[in-house]
Amino acid sequence: MRAMLKPLIGHRGPEFKELFNKLLGKTKKVFETNGDMFILTSSGTGATEAALQNITDDGDKIIVNVNGFFSERLGEAIKAYGGKPVVLGSEWGKAPRVEDFEKIVKANPDAKALAVVYNETSTGVTVRALERLGEMCADRDMLLIVDAISILGGDKLPVDDWNVDICVTASQKCLMTPPGLAFISVSDKAWMKIQSKKVNRSYYLDLLMYQKYIQDGYTPFTPAVSLLYALNEACDMILEEGLPARYERHKICAEAVYNGMEAMGLGLYADKESRSHTVAAVNSPMGMDEGKVRELIRTKYGIDFGGSLGKAKGKMFRVGIMGNVGSADIMTTVSAIGSATSELGFKAKIDEGLEAARETLSRLPER
Amino acid sequence: MRAMLKPLIGHRGPEFKELFNKLLGKTKKVFETNGDMFILTSSGTGATEAALQNITDDGDKIIVNVNGFFSERLGEAIKAYGGKPVVLGSEWGKAPRVEDFEKIVKANPDAKALAVVYNETSTGVTVRALERLGEMCADRDMLLIVDAISILGGDKLPVDDWNVDICVTASQKCLMTPPGLAFISVSDKAWMKIQSKKVNRSYYLDLLMYQKYIQDGYTPFTPAVSLLYALNEACDMILEEGLPARYERHKICAEAVYNGMEAMGLGLYADKESRSHTVAAVNSPMGMDEGKVRELIRTKYGIDFGGSLGKAKGKMFRVGIMGNVGSADIMTTVSAIGSATSELGFKAKIDEGLEAARETLSRLPER
Repeated sequence: MRAMLKPLIGHRGPEFKELFNKLLGKTKKVFETNGDMFILTSSGTGATEAALQNITDDGDKIIVNVNGFFSERLGEAIKAYGGKPVVLGSEWGKAPRVEDFEKIVKANPDAKALAVVYNETSTGVTVRALERLGEMCADRDMLLIVDAISILGGDKLPVDDWNVDICVTASQKCLMTPPGLAFISVSDKAWMKIQSKKVNRSYYLDLLMYQKYIQDGYTPFTPAVSLLYALNEACDMILEEGLPARYERHKICAEAVYNGMEAMGLGLYADKESRSHTVAAVNSPMGMDEGKVRELIRTKYGIDFGGSLGKAKGKMFRVGIMGNVGSADIMTTVSAIGSATSELGFKAKIDEGLEAARETLSRLPER
Repeated sequence: MRAMLKPLIGHRGPEFKELFNKLLGKTKKVFETNGDMFILTSSGTGATEAALQNITDDGDKIIVNVNGFFSERLGEAIKAYGGKPVVLGSEWGKAPRVEDFEKIVKANPDAKALAVVYNETSTGVTVRALERLGEMCADRDMLLIVDAISILGGDKLPVDDWNVDICVTASQKCLMTPPGLAFISVSDKAWMKIQSKKVNRSYYLDLLMYQKYIQDGYTPFTPAVSLLYALNEACDMILEEGLPARYERHKICAEAVYNGMEAMGLGLYADKESRSHTVAAVNSPMGMDEGKVRELIRTKYGIDFGGSLGKAKGKMFRVGIMGNVGSADIMTTVSAIGSATSELGFKAKIDEGLEAARETLSRLPER
C-alpha cells in the first residue's frame, strides 16, 4: 500500500516503460513462463473474458469443468462469446477425476479448448489433475486455459512445464496486491488460435492489440499505475520468499485450518484429496446460519470471511489463506471460529482445535 | 493518494456497500444525473466499450464524429461490436458544425445512436454543440452517447439537462483520481435499447448484470477498492469547490495557456471556437520535433506533456489542464515552454507570454 504513494507517471513515457518491463519480467517468473504476459486493468473476470473471447468463434466448443459458482459463471460466459460450453459437471466440493476429463476430451476431439478452474474459490476445491490435463491437451490440437485467479502464487502452477496455454489470474488474491489488475499469459500454441479467429468482438480485451503495443513497451489503454507500483513491491516479496517456500507455507497454513476445524468438531465442505491450500470451506455447524457466524467474527474478532455462493448458500463459510499469511493469522482465525460458534450454541472443542492447528503450524520454517 | 492507505475491505460486506452507495451518489452529482450510474474497473475505453457493446446488434448503425485519434478509435470499436459506424468526419483540430450533425442525423433516421467524443483529447477540440445534439436526439428514437473521458468534471456537462443517454468517463482525468476506474451513466431511454438488444457478447461489460448486482449495493466483479477510496476523496474535493467554480477555473487556466502561447509566438492546433478547457494542443514551432520539446521539458522542468498521436504525429504537444490545476501550474508551464523552445532555437517572446498568462489568470478568484 505504501508503494502506491509514489507520484503518478504518464503511461506513454520512459519511466513507465521501464517499470512495466520490469513487471512483465517479475510476473513471468511467478507464472514460471517464457510466453507472453499481459497485465490488464480489470478484475479477474475481465482476463478470463480476454482468454476465451480471443479464441472463440461462433459455435466453437469449449470443454469446461463445472463444480462451483465460478466455474458455473465460466460456462455462462463462454456462451456470451458465441461458444458452446461442453460441461464436465461434478458435485460441488469435489473435483472431476482425471478419467472424467479424459473421457470428455476424447469424446470431443473438435473442442477448441479445455477450460479449467484450477481452484474453485466458492467450494475450496483444487483440480489436482491439472498437470495431467496439460499433457492431454499438449498431445492434441486443444488449448488448455486455466482460471488460476484464487491460486496463482499460492500453489504450484508452472505454466510452461504444465503446458498451460492461457493462464489467468488477478492481483488481489495470492499476488497480494490491491484489486484492479488481471494477468494473462499466452503460449505460442494459443497465439495460433488467436490469430486464426475470424471475428473479434472486443476492443478493450483484444489481445492482438495488447501484443502490438507491448512491442513498444506500453499498454493500449491507460493502465492503473498506482496498482502497478503495489504489484512491483508484491512481486519482490514473492520472489524473495521463493515460490517453493511460498507454496509450502500456504499448504501448511491451510492444513492447520483444516486440522483445527476437524479437531474442533466442525466439518469441511471439500473432499480431502481436493482441498485447496488457498481457501478453506468450512461447514456451518448444526445448520447454523453461516451469515450469523461470519457477522459475529467480523464484528467481534475483526476477521472477514467469504460467504457461501449459489448452491452452497447458507451452508458454509470460506477462510482465505492467501498472500502473507502465517502462524498468527491462522491461530487467531481458528480461535475466533471456535469462540464464535460456541457463542452461537455449538459445543466447539476449542482446546483440541487450537492444539491441532498449533501442531500443524510447527512445520512452518522460521521466517 | 493518502486515501488509498485505508485497509482494504471485502467487496461483499456492509462497509463496502456503504462506501459504494455514497460514491454512486457523489458521482451522480458530478454527472448531474438522476439516471443509473456504474463504476467499472477498467480504463475509459472499457466503459466506452460497455456503452456501445450493450446497445449494438449486428448491423446497427451508429453515427460518430471523427476528428482525432480517439474518435477514430471509437469508429473502429463500433465495428468490433458488430455495428456499422456512420462517420461524420471533420478536419483534425476542428469540431463538426451543428449543421453537419443535423444533416447526417436526418440522413440516417434508422441509426440507433449518435456517439460523440465531447472532448477529442488528441487535438484539444471540444464539441461545443453538444447541448444542441442532445435536443436533436431527444426528438428522435436515437440515443446520444457521449465519450466525456477527458472533460467530465472540468467543463460543463449536465447529463440529464442535455439529454445525454449514456455518458462515459474515467478516473484519471478531471476526476483527479488515479487511473483504473471508469464511469458510465445510463438513462431510461438507453435502458430500453439495452434490454431489447438481441445478443450480448460480453460478460465483464454486461450492464444488465451490473444493474442486477447494484440493486443489492454491489458490483458483479471485484472492484478496485483502493481506487474507490481515492475517488471518494476526489469527489469531496470536487463537490466542495462546486461544479460552476470548477469549470470557470479550468476555463481561465486553459485561456491563460492559449493566450500565453500566442503572445509568445507559438501556434495553437485547435480552432479558436472549439478549443478545449481541459487540454491545450500547442504547435511545435518551426517544424521542431515535438518529442524533443517534451523530453527537454520533462527532464529539465519536471512537467510531463502528452505527445501527438496519429495524423498529428510530430507536429504538436498537449498540455493537460485537468483537476487541481491553478495559477502556479500554469505559470510554470508557460515559462517552461518558453525556455525549452528557446533552448531548442526558437525565439520565444517569453516576457509577453508570461504577461498574457498572468493577466488571464488574474481572473481566477482567490482560493
